[in-house]
Amino acid sequence: MPDINAVLLNCSLKKRGDETSSTDRLLAEVAEQLKKEDVGIDGPIRLADENVLPGVTSDEGSGDTWPAIRQRILDAEILVLGTPIWMGHPSSLAQRCLERLDAFLSEDDEDGRMISYDRVAIVAVVGNEDGAHHVGAQLFQGLNDVGFTIPASGMTYWVGQARHKTDYKDLGATPDDVATATAAAARNAAHLARALAKNPYPAGDKK
Amino acid sequence: MPDINAVLLNCSLKKRGDETSSTDRLLAEVAEQLKKEDVGIDGPIRLADENVLPGVTSDEGSGDTWPAIRQRILDAEILVLGTPIWMGHPSSLAQRCLERLDAFLSEDDEDGRMISYDRVAIVAVVGNEDGAHHVGAQLFQGLNDVGFTIPASGMTYWVGQARHKTDYKDLGATPDDVATATAAAARNAAHLARALAKNPYPAGDKK
Amino acid sequence: MPDINAVLLNCSLKKRGDETSSTDRLLAEVAEQLKKEDVGIDGPIRLADENVLPGVTSDEGSGDTWPAIRQRILDAEILVLGTPIWMGHPSSLAQRCLERLDAFLSEDDEDGRMISYDRVAIVAVVGNEDGAHHVGAQLFQGLNDVGFTIPASGMTYWVGQARHKTDYKDLGATPDDVATATAAAARNAAHLARALAKNPYPAGDKK
Amino acid sequence: MPDINAVLLNCSLKKRGDETSSTDRLLAEVAEQLKKEDVGIDGPIRLADENVLPGVTSDEGSGDTWPAIRQRILDAEILVLGTPIWMGHPSSLAQRCLERLDAFLSEDDEDGRMISYDRVAIVAVVGNEDGAHHVGAQLFQGLNDVGFTIPASGMTYWVGQARHKTDYKDLGATPDDVATATAAAARNAAHLARALAKNPYPAGDKK
Repeated sequence: MPDINAVLLNCSLKKRGDETSSTDRLLAEVAEQLKKEDVGIDGPIRLADENVLPGVTSDEGSGDTWPAIRQRILDAEILVLGTPIWMGHPSSLAQRCLERLDAFLSEDDEDGRMISYDRVAIVAVVGNEDGAHHVGAQLFQGLNDVGFTIPASGMTYWVGQARHKTDYKDLGATPDDVATATAAAARNAAHLARALAKNPYPAGDKK
Repeated sequence: MPDINAVLLNCSLKKRGDETSSTDRLLAEVAEQLKKEDVGIDGPIRLADENVLPGVTSDEGSGDTWPAIRQRILDAEILVLGTPIWMGHPSSLAQRCLERLDAFLSEDDEDGRMISYDRVAIVAVVGNEDGAHHVGAQLFQGLNDVGFTIPASGMTYWVGQARHKTDYKDLGATPDDVATATAAAARNAAHLARALAKNPYPAGDKK
Repeated sequence: MPDINAVLLNCSLKKRGDETSSTDRLLAEVAEQLKKEDVGIDGPIRLADENVLPGVTSDEGSGDTWPAIRQRILDAEILVLGTPIWMGHPSSLAQRCLERLDAFLSEDDEDGRMISYDRVAIVAVVGNEDGAHHVGAQLFQGLNDVGFTIPASGMTYWVGQARHKTDYKDLGATPDDVATATAAAARNAAHLARALAKNPYPAGDKK
Repeated sequence: MPDINAVLLNCSLKKRGDETSSTDRLLAEVAEQLKKEDVGIDGPIRLADENVLPGVTSDEGSGDTWPAIRQRILDAEILVLGTPIWMGHPSSLAQRCLERLDAFLSEDDEDGRMISYDRVAIVAVVGNEDGAHHVGAQLFQGLNDVGFTIPASGMTYWVGQARHKTDYKDLGATPDDVATATAAAARNAAHLARALAKNPYPAGDKK
């Protein structure tokens, strides 16, 4: 029984029943590295298979499947947000996820801290050719706004050469540099989540 | 003698001899909160008064004053990067700072970790009217790339209403929400820097 | 019968049956200015009331209402993309719209040009407190990638002071600076759309 | 004697006396294509060889070489802004350029229009591995804010595969897709600049 757990979200536009997702490949590599750090794994949750309604509250009513996803996020110490790059941006499903997490800004735990505090987030980004740094920037800022801590070297990504069409899922062996980054993000996330479990942020005026 | 220290960088375009800087006001408020957390303060260093040469190495040669700034960054456990918003972006001096920090990617400590590891970064952003979230996004991603850890709620900022000309330095009392965010960023930075001092990131394959 | 037409898209997360949208107020002001320039108006189309499926093709199959929206975009000379700011970013519905427009990259007109050529796009952005420049940046780049031309001063926006909760729909009179920007964006869009109608881009190797 | 001219700015961090710049290679390819469209060429101006002082006015005083560059920008109908990508962002010299162009917001021509109106801007972006779309987004938004019009497909770029170190200047033959994008950006810029010369934006309330 692991002492800490990670939940993985896949913001691919593809449904699971359809062809496989490049984001899934990179998330599987992150999960593999997290397991080496004795972290329990929940997911990946494929958002395209869910019904996450538009809105910025924790429950948008009838048919909304976000409440269960939200609980799995709160049950884990690590959030791994995986997204493809479209038009150079996080996918619409990744942005939808940030919009729903926005509700954390007004949700406190029993100590009066934002409900997400002491949790760590890392990101996994894949695209054909360009955009990983910017996608990482947007996700880091959004996740940090809603209370997550970002460990050193907290992003792993792959993109191909300009205007190429290769998908990460169709790439041969994982490039060494990508594997190294994936391992570092996972190792640092596990380490930091345990450090925060032992040393929770103090209460104070909430942001 | 404090157990941890913070170095503050002011990326205002204004020279110190000229009119005062809004970024300085917000940085002074961050420093005040850090002192409440028993953190020692170095700076703010006004980059417009320095001669940080263009380039991406740790020493760009004759006249370059970055090497001394770099050492002060490494001597501190917390980096507070303060910048105004111009055109919706971090100032050219903030980007210059990121370009020079880029050298950390190939600099290791004695354990083979990136030289900046175990250090925490927060950002302080001021503008007349718009752009703080994006500036925070760019700075978080850049600082995280080069090894800094971002604590929960790691940004404080002020902007006015659309197309307004008010400067933060000319504002009356600090708005409560800004003061709360400043205190949270400082408190979380101090807490996380101490947690990482007790629990340094493990060595591993460097990113 | 106007010689040129504009289609307006509202990427608010709110359904039309629910409370009114701030984006709608700003779009109504854009429409008013476009009418002064003798431009015909189609919309606004509220995307939250549509069923725009995830994907990057022009028709994602059963239930997808994008094909009809896409046709209305192609039937107009001007696209006005209106979005709220969430987490500092374009709404998930605005990103969804860009993802679906991505298909234009491989769709040619009879002259071998990208199908969207000679069309002009402007953006209208509203948020409580911050993010308009970055949202404009993302939308300009995405829309330009898929063939739209951006007229001078092609954005109008409103945001309030940092951490404020005021909605544009609840603001009293429209601030003069916002009205001026709205009029300029509309005037320049109408002018440029007519200039391109008289002077269509030449054929050539498609991007 | 060409009827329209383009001025090219190179925002590389490298001085001309030092090793060659990848940005220069891409700008040379843009210039070549502009010449095919009978556009006169001024530059590229290497900003690292200039002394563009920090600030947001058109003349920052003693030693500032921006006033001459600004005049060359106003003397041309097309601005080509070339920049490398550092940390996923435009170079500090590109941001410096935007900061100095900010002054256009309060400078009118004799018709009361922003002084830059009727001018067209395109961007040329090179990096080792990632960031072109975001850099394009920031430059498009900044240039549009200060009055430039962005033609369809107004960006050309090259980046390599994730974490690669290859420089564009060391690449063999220019990839076909890059050449096609460069030709399209140049062709559309020339076309649009001529269309605006014949059909200048009407006067009106300045943005």
